Amino acid sequence: SIIRILEERTEPKRDLEGKKVLVTAGPTQETIDPVRFFTNHSSGKMGYAVAEAAAKRGADVTLVSGPSQLTTPFGVKRIDVTSAQDMLDQVLIVYGEQDIVIKAAAVADYRPVQTFDSKVKKQDGNLSIEMERTTDILLTLGQRKQHQFLVGFAAETNDAVAYGKGKLERKHLDAICVNTVGKTGAGFQSDTNEVIYLNREGKEQHLPSDTKKQIAHRILDEIVEDMEADRK
Amino acid sequence: SIIRILEERTEPKRDLEGKKVLVTAGPTQETIDPVRFFTNHSSGKMGYAVAEAAAKRGADVTLVSGPSQLTTPFGVKRIDVTSAQDMLDQVLIVYGEQDIVIKAAAVADYRPVQTFDSKVKKQDGNLSIEMERTTDILLTLGQRKQHQFLVGFAAETNDAVAYGKGKLERKHLDAICVNTVGKTGAGFQSDTNEVIYLNREGKEQHLPSDTKKQIAHRILDEIVEDMEADRK
Repeated sequence: SIIRILEERTEPKRDLEGKKVLVTAGPTQETIDPVRFFTNHSSGKMGYAVAEAAAKRGADVTLVSGPSQLTTPFGVKRIDVTSAQDMLDQVLIVYGEQDIVIKAAAVADYRPVQTFDSKVKKQDGNLSIEMERTTDILLTLGQRKQHQFLVGFAAETNDAVAYGKGKLERKHLDAICVNTVGKTGAGFQSDTNEVIYLNREGKEQHLPSDTKKQIAHRILDEIVEDMEADRK
Repeated sequence: SIIRILEERTEPKRDLEGKKVLVTAGPTQETIDPVRFFTNHSSGKMGYAVAEAAAKRGADVTLVSGPSQLTTPFGVKRIDVTSAQDMLDQVLIVYGEQDIVIKAAAVADYRPVQTFDSKVKKQDGNLSIEMERTTDILLTLGQRKQHQFLVGFAAETNDAVAYGKGKLERKHLDAICVNTVGKTGAGFQSDTNEVIYLNREGKEQHLPSDTKKQIAHRILDEIVEDMEADRK
């Protein structure tokens, strides 16, 4: 298409040259037994788009990805994980050296308390699955933050902006991208997105509906602007 | 590759000409809320391979598929479903007119008793999810069987053959394909498979490890042979 040709001919900004960027993406899977698991509808597309955009802008990008069918963007170092705990472990290993951390993954909040090595046989009647909280990765990163610019996402079906502001504060983030997932959760698999970028100074920047690739660049624009403002 | 060229040059048998074949494939997803769900590691590859092989052999194939990234095989009518209940509903609509029914789907045994329209907020402490049994599709088909040749699959981590024989009897199947999934569940995503084909007459045919496409043809060979024996 014409848009694609224009995109390819436009020289990308190299405003992330020399920066280390960590992106998390995709869902996590929380194992019940070798066959069954608990997960969510994240496709990983938003996180992969952010990783790709950051790499094009010159960053040294690490992508910690839950299970996904997506192709690793060119020039990005990808680390595959399955569970929330795996993701936390991998993220913490590289966290200290990052300049920007963007947590686009939809990490499971809960995991089964018990995991079975063999397939659990079905039985008559109901079954109660006891779930426990996983470690909150974004909160952990917020608490251990040194120099990193830390960005979260909030996908909520109700009161998304108010919830996003609360999360920004509570988890010590520098910014948060709020998107309203439809009641059907369809936004998760979609190739487009629409977000509101909130920062600690009260900026509330609406990034109108566009491809996830374009939204990714717009988010990076906001991050670069905020980081430059911080330095002044 | 040479194998592909040989495969393509070999004229396929047309021994299912005029037969209606129903195949189910893939996992099902059981909704907790718009974001979260329970599911399993089925890739759908075995069922899609059976549907493709049956179509190549002249059958009129309907494929009822849970969520899958796979491409619909040429000439196959595909009906997409999400939950075990959706799959049951769609299968029952077309069951009466089928000659052969092969249930390769990994249908969830349990679903959450309660499903929420909005994303459930996480809270401190544990969470207990009450699960109820889904309707057993294969048992339902066995009970309502008229002229159909009904084939199930059994993927078990332990005592697979003994379990398969029990299931064959209990669910009034004509045959069952037993495969031993690894302790890691990896067999589900694999491009190869190894099954033991059991029938009501005590046949126990080992189909050694091969591509799922070849295993699909070998299973159809066994079914055709059994159906011809039934007619005598």
